[in-house]
Amino acid sequence: MALRMSTLFLRTLREDPADAELPGHKLLVRAGYIRRVAPGIYTWLPLGMKVLGKVEDIVREEMNQIGSQEVKFPALLPREPYEATGRWTEYGDNLFRLQDRKETDLLLGPTHEEMFCLAVKDMYSSYKDLPLSLYQIQNKYRDEARPRAGILRGREFIMKDAYSFDIDQAGLQKAYDGFREAYVRIFNRLGFEYVIVHADSGAMGGSASEEFLAVNENGEDTFVRDEHGYAANVEAVTVPQAAEIDASSTPTAQVHDTPDTPTIATLVDALNANHARTDGRSWDGADTLKNVLVMLAHPDGTREPLAIGLPGDREVDAKRLEVQVAPAEVEPFEEKDFAAYPMLAKGYIGPGVLGEEKSSKIRYLLDPSIAVGSAWVTGADEHGKHVLHLVHGRDFTADGTIQAGEIRQGDISPDGKGTLKLARGIEMGHIFQLGTKYAEALGLKVLDENGKLVTVTMGSYGVGVTRAVGVIAEDNNDEYGLVWPREIAPADVHVVVASKDAAVYVRTDEIVRQLEAQGLAVLYDDRPKVSPGVKFKDAELIGVPTILVIGKGLADGKVEIKDRRSGERREVAVDAVVTSVVDEVRGS
Amino acid sequence: MALRMSTLFLRTLREDPADAELPGHKLLVRAGYIRRVAPGIYTWLPLGMKVLGKVEDIVREEMNQIGSQEVKFPALLPREPYEATGRWTEYGDNLFRLQDRKETDLLLGPTHEEMFCLAVKDMYSSYKDLPLSLYQIQNKYRDEARPRAGILRGREFIMKDAYSFDIDQAGLQKAYDGFREAYVRIFNRLGFEYVIVHADSGAMGGSASEEFLAVNENGEDTFVRDEHGYAANVEAVTVPQAAEIDASSTPTAQVHDTPDTPTIATLVDALNANHARTDGRSWDGADTLKNVLVMLAHPDGTREPLAIGLPGDREVDAKRLEVQVAPAEVEPFEEKDFAAYPMLAKGYIGPGVLGEEKSSKIRYLLDPSIAVGSAWVTGADEHGKHVLHLVHGRDFTADGTIQAGEIRQGDISPDGKGTLKLARGIEMGHIFQLGTKYAEALGLKVLDENGKLVTVTMGSYGVGVTRAVGVIAEDNNDEYGLVWPREIAPADVHVVVASKDAAVYVRTDEIVRQLEAQGLAVLYDDRPKVSPGVKFKDAELIGVPTILVIGKGLADGKVEIKDRRSGERREVAVDAVVTSVVDEVRGS
Repeated sequence: MALRMSTLFLRTLREDPADAELPGHKLLVRAGYIRRVAPGIYTWLPLGMKVLGKVEDIVREEMNQIGSQEVKFPALLPREPYEATGRWTEYGDNLFRLQDRKETDLLLGPTHEEMFCLAVKDMYSSYKDLPLSLYQIQNKYRDEARPRAGILRGREFIMKDAYSFDIDQAGLQKAYDGFREAYVRIFNRLGFEYVIVHADSGAMGGSASEEFLAVNENGEDTFVRDEHGYAANVEAVTVPQAAEIDASSTPTAQVHDTPDTPTIATLVDALNANHARTDGRSWDGADTLKNVLVMLAHPDGTREPLAIGLPGDREVDAKRLEVQVAPAEVEPFEEKDFAAYPMLAKGYIGPGVLGEEKSSKIRYLLDPSIAVGSAWVTGADEHGKHVLHLVHGRDFTADGTIQAGEIRQGDISPDGKGTLKLARGIEMGHIFQLGTKYAEALGLKVLDENGKLVTVTMGSYGVGVTRAVGVIAEDNNDEYGLVWPREIAPADVHVVVASKDAAVYVRTDEIVRQLEAQGLAVLYDDRPKVSPGVKFKDAELIGVPTILVIGKGLADGKVEIKDRRSGERREVAVDAVVTSVVDEVRGS
Repeated sequence: MALRMSTLFLRTLREDPADAELPGHKLLVRAGYIRRVAPGIYTWLPLGMKVLGKVEDIVREEMNQIGSQEVKFPALLPREPYEATGRWTEYGDNLFRLQDRKETDLLLGPTHEEMFCLAVKDMYSSYKDLPLSLYQIQNKYRDEARPRAGILRGREFIMKDAYSFDIDQAGLQKAYDGFREAYVRIFNRLGFEYVIVHADSGAMGGSASEEFLAVNENGEDTFVRDEHGYAANVEAVTVPQAAEIDASSTPTAQVHDTPDTPTIATLVDALNANHARTDGRSWDGADTLKNVLVMLAHPDGTREPLAIGLPGDREVDAKRLEVQVAPAEVEPFEEKDFAAYPMLAKGYIGPGVLGEEKSSKIRYLLDPSIAVGSAWVTGADEHGKHVLHLVHGRDFTADGTIQAGEIRQGDISPDGKGTLKLARGIEMGHIFQLGTKYAEALGLKVLDENGKLVTVTMGSYGVGVTRAVGVIAEDNNDEYGLVWPREIAPADVHVVVASKDAAVYVRTDEIVRQLEAQGLAVLYDDRPKVSPGVKFKDAELIGVPTILVIGKGLADGKVEIKDRRSGERREVAVDAVVTSVVDEVRGS
């Protein structure tokens, strides 16, 4: 049955909603696809349900295609399995926790590794039962600190999560490859630009993982690409250890008075004014060694300081750092913390006091770009003083290295062969080779061919379903409204009656019936008292790819077909309208 | 693609699960449709998903048929709207409440009247926008005190909830009638016996409501029917006020010593031993007036006593009482409560001290069967004493009446014309004329034809979707397993290879492909190392209505078709197998 605008639960808005920032999000609200209920929590209106259903169908088809079996686990889950794997604590504030009337702890599932693992443990016992692949399309819950951009990062959202179970790594690799190919098919069908990047496994654990990122300048993820096809999430970029440098001709370290230089910029100015280099070039931030202090808050409630040394022209990348220190969370090193470490001369901190063996006993990790043998200007651990020619390996050492420095456009690729370009993306899919982390924690073992118990090897695979609708909207719009790809659109054709003549409605009813008889889904603007101008505006806002306008021309046997994306219009004879629309929709 | 038993995520069980009581529940677990995760919280396995999908499709079809539009609201909801209607408190312990990281109160939606009401308020403003009917099929949450019987009463469950919005009562009646008819169609298709009964509106508020009850001896609801077509949930039965009796010849009330008669049984024995009636018959419980005390716990935390007077041969019906006093909850009147009311002589309490104007000041309500003018034996408010010939209206009065006495087989119908029969049922659907309760609380008004703001009139309509699967299983099974109705079955035909001969599998693969080409959904037992006996047992347990057995007979060109419900088997020629199975499935 046609969706009739006269009865459709819809109120299009001419103004942007106050709480939306991104163009696609604004349009989804204005065109009546979604409606905000609370931060990060949305209602799907009738048009939104159509689009969401299309995306779910694509995901379901491709999952079934690779033999994954659909199940549905509860969203409300017991604490114990998540306690066993540590995630009850590790998820921190992101996990919605609650208690039932008996004060039993429960949670709203963020992902379901534990539950699938236990179900398989309960039901299967032999290598003969494997391989196994299961999926569900289901509401997930994460109490995001900053729910943003509408359905791009919600607190209640629909995800397709899948899990594979194999007897060994070779089996896992095969399952992983199968999912990777299915994901390529899914994202090719969804109609937005994406890139597959090496990713960090984060709180999920496990070894190899890749992300499918929608390329989008408003994305929260930064990724890099080089000219040889390398692509990675910045969190997953491994800066190579710089090769050792010969420091035999480097002068001995010298402490200099550098008053009022607590920042890299003031330091560089002072150096250039008072300590001209012998090689003729000016000092810049890259010649300085910046030591950044943070506090790590561990899940058990303890706090621990950490010092990171990196070239002064680079910042610590908060996300890269988070990944390295997880499950600990990063907190600022505050004035009260400085008070507890009197040997730290704020603004003039140097390797002299940093390190587990030094006076502060603060763990000190270096950026891998700090080569052994390289010389630095850095803090002399006294207010107003810096030390020059301080050589790594000769004059100072650290407790290790850390991949936490920012990655910049033009940096060298990890393999040393390419040059990195940076772009922004939105995580749309993530595939993980979990290995045995969950199976070990929960005791999922099966008998192998020799009757020996072996731990099952798992993979986990996610697609953000509601998020996909958001990204498609961000990637498919113009100044007039949304422009859905055909496979995702809420209808195949939007029929607009541009007339107040009752006879035109009667004829259009008939055409709509004929279009439906051809299997087309029709959105029918049959509102008798709404002006053609408003109807056209609504049609462009809603974004069905083909618009059929039936109005005055009908008297001369003519109707108009408009392509929403190109804006092209063409007149066709009303007698040929059904064939013309079907051809347009089916692309012949 | 056929569901292949060799890879299907399934492990059938020969033993009943320890935590299941009802036959259908046991079989759903044993046959691998569902799996318990926590009390009242279940996972749907692949076969369960098929059945659940069938039920959802039926419900969705019938909702679309009456022009209701599908939407999806979040399950995680803000407190404020539920606070505005009072349900945040009224739901008591049944509501799952939680807080987010900012300590904002949230809840898991038990039903969504408030949210739909607010969405319509936000989007619509005129009578021209109405009527409107919306529905969703979605997870609901209720923290049941006693989750039981598997998916029949879960704490997370799928419900189809729908809401209608109209300008006036006539519109609501029309919407209500439409839903009622759609529900009749839905429940006719689902394959279990049901009855439509007058119902109490309970915590939902509103006026008229009817329940669709599955007739089931294990049901938690009791309903009555009479020979003239009257049917009601016992909570909704209105016992008529007994007509006044002429008490002019009744002797004056007399207090007698009745030592050791704190119960109706001991009292009746004592009466028959010591106080022979003048009319020749014996005393029985129906001659006595029993006064029952309970404590009402109000949502605001206060407690209030209530006394109920009813014939001594009847009990107070806990559910009928609950409905009358909601949102207060009923608690026992304990020893400490008696201590606070020294005028109550436990076991000998009479109307002498009960009532807001009497010494106890306890509100005193009578069963409507207590006629004005009727004479009673009842407590004399002194230990070991009762009073005889105490006449209602002459010797005592009460503060009102209450519909809380038990309803019994053989009672007269509310209209006085029929005789009630009792039966048990399971609530499968509930339709409510809510009226303006929610719209008033949340300010949902629209302009009427005269430009005047009027409050919108709502209806709400629910179907228990997961519960329906449970009831179908309870109603369709035998000693061997489940016996699904065709429209609900996880597959159209279960193909069993009863052979270890590879050639038979090859031929069966081909037959399965042909069956699928005819549009049939096939469950295919292709397990090469499993014995025919085990396969037959599994097929009976799983309960697909048509079983096709391909085995030794194939050499002679014969296969066997078995009807799961009747147990009938017939041989057919392998050349005609596809036609035969299609005919069997399609019923021609």
